[in-house]
Amino acid sequence: MGNTIDTIFSRRSVREFTKEDVSDDAITTILECGRWAPSGLNNQPWKFVVIREQDGIHKLADCTRYTKTVLSANVLIAVYFDNETSYNKTKDIQAIGAAVQNMLLACEELGLGAVWLGEILNQQEDVDFILKAPENAELMAVIAIGHPVEKARSSSRKDLEDIVFREKFGTKW
Amino acid sequence: MGNTIDTIFSRRSVREFTKEDVSDDAITTILECGRWAPSGLNNQPWKFVVIREQDGIHKLADCTRYTKTVLSANVLIAVYFDNETSYNKTKDIQAIGAAVQNMLLACEELGLGAVWLGEILNQQEDVDFILKAPENAELMAVIAIGHPVEKARSSSRKDLEDIVFREKFGTKW
Repeated sequence: MGNTIDTIFSRRSVREFTKEDVSDDAITTILECGRWAPSGLNNQPWKFVVIREQDGIHKLADCTRYTKTVLSANVLIAVYFDNETSYNKTKDIQAIGAAVQNMLLACEELGLGAVWLGEILNQQEDVDFILKAPENAELMAVIAIGHPVEKARSSSRKDLEDIVFREKFGTKW
Repeated sequence: MGNTIDTIFSRRSVREFTKEDVSDDAITTILECGRWAPSGLNNQPWKFVVIREQDGIHKLADCTRYTKTVLSANVLIAVYFDNETSYNKTKDIQAIGAAVQNMLLACEELGLGAVWLGEILNQQEDVDFILKAPENAELMAVIAIGHPVEKARSSSRKDLEDIVFREKFGTKW
């Protein structure tokens, strides 16, 4: 197996970061990876807001119960769905997920840690206000990024036989 | 830049495949990559149906306008959202997109070609009938996979400055 598959398997959510800065180059690479995600009709229904200043980080930290993680992050990327470029919301939201995953994998490969924050959507209106989101933009996720505090991070998944079927539903893989 | 980021940049939709079989090992690796996608609360809201027999492939080829691509594929993976494990549909559908992207990247790294078919959702009910989908399963996508016919495949994306903002919407990256 090559590097990409290893990266997919080794990626874990990282919620504690060191004080070390994430370089501009790294952020650009992460954004480029988001940009190159596939989307239906190649409509690219995403917008990204990069938050690096303490003012923005502190304000966003108040919009989630994961305050510590957000305050510890060096960079936040708010991921928005752009209703103006939408053609099918179910497909578009999947494309957003593909873009987020590309960015998480890029972080992993760059030796950075990241976590996909979804709970912050509960305070979507506050986030929109802080980031001056236009009417057509809908918050999908915030990615918190930084250099990881070293520690073991375990995770688990359902077995393939519980989620995969052969030819039709009913016949287990 | 390492391999994962290269894979993200080099992946293209492949719609024509050779007759060569995709190995069982490759399919398992692809599914493992889908399985290891992140999801909100780690709920893993996906089910996959692997279709390799000609009977199933022919029936599904009739459910899309991309008949030729489906008939040319060696393997199809139908990706379903599992309503029973859902906790928040917007976040769950993003997670499905992350799982699809992991599988597409795995294909690229394994030297296989793949295309994410969304148009087939127009005939969702027929696909559900063919695959004996239970009530709680909702079709999200079909991935067509095979060994790629060699040809140049170009694609394009919007510039970063058109999709990325600094600190707040309005200030371009």
